[in-house]
Amino acid sequence: MNETVQNLANTLRQLGWQLCTAESCTGGLIAGACTDLAGSSDWFDRGFVTYSNAAKVEMLSVPLHLIDQHGAVSEPVARAMAEGALAHSKAQVSVAVTGVAGPSGGSADKPVGTVWFAWCLNGKTSSERQHFDGDRAAVRGATVSHALSGLMARLIKS
Amino acid sequence: MNETVQNLANTLRQLGWQLCTAESCTGGLIAGACTDLAGSSDWFDRGFVTYSNAAKVEMLSVPLHLIDQHGAVSEPVARAMAEGALAHSKAQVSVAVTGVAGPSGGSADKPVGTVWFAWCLNGKTSSERQHFDGDRAAVRGATVSHALSGLMARLIKS
Repeated sequence: MNETVQNLANTLRQLGWQLCTAESCTGGLIAGACTDLAGSSDWFDRGFVTYSNAAKVEMLSVPLHLIDQHGAVSEPVARAMAEGALAHSKAQVSVAVTGVAGPSGGSADKPVGTVWFAWCLNGKTSSERQHFDGDRAAVRGATVSHALSGLMARLIKS
Repeated sequence: MNETVQNLANTLRQLGWQLCTAESCTGGLIAGACTDLAGSSDWFDRGFVTYSNAAKVEMLSVPLHLIDQHGAVSEPVARAMAEGALAHSKAQVSVAVTGVAGPSGGSADKPVGTVWFAWCLNGKTSSERQHFDGDRAAVRGATVSHALSGLMARLIKS
């Protein structure tokens, strides 16, 4: 994790960009991992821990009808979270996650371990669904790790 | 930590209250610790990771003149963060932290390890200054722990 965050820091510094995060199931752990690194204030702007649906709507302007139609753990909501985070910050790049960390809350089409990711940069939003095995801590840890490695991959391509 | 969070969860559930967090130096780790617990959506509303000064002003309505006059790591800013978090959420109780996690950023009157805490509940704000020894990870860990134990102490008294 430390190496990924260090690479991320170097890349964002080179670009002169700032990052913001929008987190549901990880509850602040992505922001926490970024700010583990000294000097992260150079490239980390802010984080939105939008655990409740009301928080997603109020802090990130996620349209309530998207949550009603698709559920909080869905591609449209993840994308709206990433776009809302950018709109409500000074950052140039964002990452958003919304998932079922468990042990409860799973369903047939969204079992425990299902996580939707979205990244927003250069005016484009990309999204991805993943499924992680293990308990709540394992799902949350894997989500933090994938959010950051997916961000790095997109920054390198940019 | 787990036991403190479990006690906090039980107490907030009994009160029917929700919690929100406003974090600077811990960068989301207090929210992360709360949401480690399954079912935390019952009592955890949202978290504001206001790492930059702009984030403190924009997300929490911290008056810029307080930051200019007293610095981001100060009692007035910690109190304004806790009050701003409540005002910008649906929660009944808030905790805010702002500190110098290090290794750089320290000064004679605010050495590395200095952290200001504020808690807001029942229309009252209380605040406290602490100094923690150790490296960045140790200071951040001690800050999370003190934020939550201070919250529990105030909930029990309420």
